[in-house]
Amino acid sequence: MRRIRLTVAYDGTNYCGWQVQPNGITIEEVLNAALSKMLGEAVAVIGASRTDSGVHASGNVAVFDSETRIPPERISYALNQHLPDDIVIVKSEEVPLDWHPRYRDCTKTYEYRILNAKVGDPTRRLYTFFVSYDLDMENMRRAAKYLVGRHDFSSFCSIHANVDDMVRTVHSLEIVSVGDELRICITGNGFLYNMVRIIVGTLLRVGRGFYAPERVKEILETRNRKAAGVTVPPQGLRLVEIKYFSDVRKTGEGHQIKPRQGVLMSNDKPD
Amino acid sequence: MRRIRLTVAYDGTNYCGWQVQPNGITIEEVLNAALSKMLGEAVAVIGASRTDSGVHASGNVAVFDSETRIPPERISYALNQHLPDDIVIVKSEEVPLDWHPRYRDCTKTYEYRILNAKVGDPTRRLYTFFVSYDLDMENMRRAAKYLVGRHDFSSFCSIHANVDDMVRTVHSLEIVSVGDELRICITGNGFLYNMVRIIVGTLLRVGRGFYAPERVKEILETRNRKAAGVTVPPQGLRLVEIKYFSDVRKTGEGHQIKPRQGVLMSNDKPD
Repeated sequence: MRRIRLTVAYDGTNYCGWQVQPNGITIEEVLNAALSKMLGEAVAVIGASRTDSGVHASGNVAVFDSETRIPPERISYALNQHLPDDIVIVKSEEVPLDWHPRYRDCTKTYEYRILNAKVGDPTRRLYTFFVSYDLDMENMRRAAKYLVGRHDFSSFCSIHANVDDMVRTVHSLEIVSVGDELRICITGNGFLYNMVRIIVGTLLRVGRGFYAPERVKEILETRNRKAAGVTVPPQGLRLVEIKYFSDVRKTGEGHQIKPRQGVLMSNDKPD
Repeated sequence: MRRIRLTVAYDGTNYCGWQVQPNGITIEEVLNAALSKMLGEAVAVIGASRTDSGVHASGNVAVFDSETRIPPERISYALNQHLPDDIVIVKSEEVPLDWHPRYRDCTKTYEYRILNAKVGDPTRRLYTFFVSYDLDMENMRRAAKYLVGRHDFSSFCSIHANVDDMVRTVHSLEIVSVGDELRICITGNGFLYNMVRIIVGTLLRVGRGFYAPERVKEILETRNRKAAGVTVPPQGLRLVEIKYFSDVRKTGEGHQIKPRQGVLMSNDKPD
């Protein structure tokens, strides 16, 4: 038995998110079916980030256990033959049997793309959020600085049920302009439910001139979701990368794969 | 009665090209239906470029005649409300009643995007052609120089029926690298059927080292489609812009809109 880690890229447009659910097809489900068919054994992957419906990824991470004799680094090539065009395995490699994609110290990087133009672009409608009003990037950058660091992000979380720890660390939050796009790039040690999309919705209110940059500091302190801006739509969001820092486990469950607590299950659900 | 010119952007993925045809839905058909519904009169647009199935556009041009009292420059806003997300009217304006989008001196600019990386990107699969092998850009650029200028492009045309003039002028052909994409940008006074896609297929053979750059000169002189490379797939192609140079008509048909000759109808069908 070996544990294989996959780096997974996908276009989330046609999926009801990562996690298996009754209402529609999901990335996890398609991966499980393709792996089970290819390996001739029942395979269930465990993903690092359960991205929402319509959200994309260039570097989500998943693991599975198998007795296959296919060399680990060749599994990506073989598996891509069994996957639809909108899911691509970027890399496959062996990891220790107790390596778990959610119980490790890591940083996750998300990018949110805003198309800031007078008219929309049909070829980018599935990968950007179209905003036609002018944006004050300098004020957005000033506002973003208040969010960097270790904070209670209650104001930036849609669902508070079963979450007893709303503190997260945002390592960096950069706003860059690429042609007619504004790209908001945020790296942190974990994200609350819809956190990135609410942060972007709030920064857009600053960019439009509705909120002064300092208001973001107040919103943080309020710890009230109602104080922040709207949750922007999913298609602008992509999970860019997950970086794992050590092979030391974050918690000490031993070798089994099992959910840590209800807490982590809902807590770590990213935007 | 007024003639209105539309600048049209679209994602060609879900359409069987521009021109109305029996096998599936087309851009032209959707525009006609939306305009007729909005204006309460039967409207038929005339397009400048009949792009193929799967090909995109950011600046195709179409005209229609109407007795509407909506100010010409407001028609784009109104029409966008009646169109699906993958077709956007970028601009609307009044032109003289004898202005025809295909009988004017113009230059057309097409761009072909190649994703040159080790693994594909699911979020760009509908807008790029994925090529995993290494490309020699310098040799591609050297080869491209032979195509610039006034030439008989018979070797770069899929269909020769009813086309008695295979001479076109390519004003510029540039190959730029944007991140992991190679973008081939070509401007000319008109393009034969599949011309851009066959040029790109041929340049890729040069880039891969199968053809020396000088071979492209020979291919041109052969005037034989079989000498050139394959027709690359449609999704990498987009019609970027059509520039009209004067309000002087190219030919003298007077005020009616009618096809000039069978020649132009098939001739001007772009990649």
